[in-house]
Amino acid sequence: MGESGDTPVTALSRGEGLAAWRQIADGLAAEIEAGRLAAGAQLPTEAALAARFGVNRHTVRRALAALAERGLVRATQGRGTFVEAPRLAYPIGLRTRFSEIVSRAGREAWGDLIAAASIPADDGLAEDLGIGVGDPVLELLTVHRADGTPISTARTCLPLPRFAGFDRAYAALGSITRAYAEYGIADYTRLSTRIGARVAAADEAARLDLAPGRVLITIASVNVDAAGTRIQATRSLFVADRVELVVEG
Amino acid sequence: MGESGDTPVTALSRGEGLAAWRQIADGLAAEIEAGRLAAGAQLPTEAALAARFGVNRHTVRRALAALAERGLVRATQGRGTFVEAPRLAYPIGLRTRFSEIVSRAGREAWGDLIAAASIPADDGLAEDLGIGVGDPVLELLTVHRADGTPISTARTCLPLPRFAGFDRAYAALGSITRAYAEYGIADYTRLSTRIGARVAAADEAARLDLAPGRVLITIASVNVDAAGTRIQATRSLFVADRVELVVEG
Repeated sequence: MGESGDTPVTALSRGEGLAAWRQIADGLAAEIEAGRLAAGAQLPTEAALAARFGVNRHTVRRALAALAERGLVRATQGRGTFVEAPRLAYPIGLRTRFSEIVSRAGREAWGDLIAAASIPADDGLAEDLGIGVGDPVLELLTVHRADGTPISTARTCLPLPRFAGFDRAYAALGSITRAYAEYGIADYTRLSTRIGARVAAADEAARLDLAPGRVLITIASVNVDAAGTRIQATRSLFVADRVELVVEG
Repeated sequence: MGESGDTPVTALSRGEGLAAWRQIADGLAAEIEAGRLAAGAQLPTEAALAARFGVNRHTVRRALAALAERGLVRATQGRGTFVEAPRLAYPIGLRTRFSEIVSRAGREAWGDLIAAASIPADDGLAEDLGIGVGDPVLELLTVHRADGTPISTARTCLPLPRFAGFDRAYAALGSITRAYAEYGIADYTRLSTRIGARVAAADEAARLDLAPGRVLITIASVNVDAAGTRIQATRSLFVADRVELVVEG
């Protein structure tokens, strides 16, 4: 963000009837949309912005809140305000692969394993995976990133004993698709996808590097292997500010 | 909701460590899920619930807020608290018809025309409809109901002069599909669907009979006629508490 005065935001048009906070927000939004403030860049502090625009910090705070509301920046507790990347277009189809989608968008994909456990299948899991209630499944808790920014977090369940050790393969490879390859699964397809939305809980917001109260898109999906056997039931939470789902007709 | 005492919620298990508001919320949730409190039913007033459970109104208010957060009830300004219907499973596919989906769920479908105008196409509309920037389109603002409850509101744009008078057909028939039939369009299909989510603005919440701060699923879609000509660009807002989108693999 240059100080040269050629960016519209550095001069407020006083007396033109538009509130100062809105002029500041619109100016910063124009800089973000034009790419002058790049995705991931940290905004100057409230004090620095207040000094630059000749307004008080309350006005700056209101402008930043308006930008956060539009999904253009994210404020993180104690670490400042950062420019959000453009929303990732995320196709939902027969073959939906996080790594491929993110790589195709020119961003680096990685999945972090947060926790893993062997649990007995409840009614829902038994139905999703076509197994008995109480049968053992491997439960993985993961966070999926594009260029380091969390896009989604997921709870994935796979039947045991077939996928014993899958958590270690995932932790090493950072991708469900690559971990499947280690288990001889070269292809898998989506059987069903159910989509909803809700506000993030505090722990989910923290895991996704998100301000409290932001919106999540919920996706419940079941995948099958090439033989049609159900191999995966996943409940994902996508950050609505960071993705747009695309369903091809 | 009977006063006979055979429903678990009428007796609080004091001293068992679970907060009173949570016991009340769980009890009412169980009644809703069992169907004893039917969809659309009005809950007793806060004062009546406080008297029944022997707690103060603050405790009742907290229990009702927890139920609203789970999407089981909705509080409407000045009119009381109502039981939400189960979420409508809404398939997104080549042929997505609001009326058919709602009817198949055993509920009555109707679309209200709120406003209509002839407007010049902006860049986005021109691209979506395959027409020139500035070409005239008919813009409809609609609200779509299942058994009277608003499920979604939409801004739909159709090219003119082909669809001149479509607003009157829609107002009379309450359905896009039935209005198309009047224009000789027996079939139409979905070209693209883009899905996001965000919090409802105040005017949107009012139009959808929704408490402020609840979440909307946004859907931008384009439809084509049997010849593949783009005939409709729609931006819909679905109440996340009232629908679950289903994408078949």
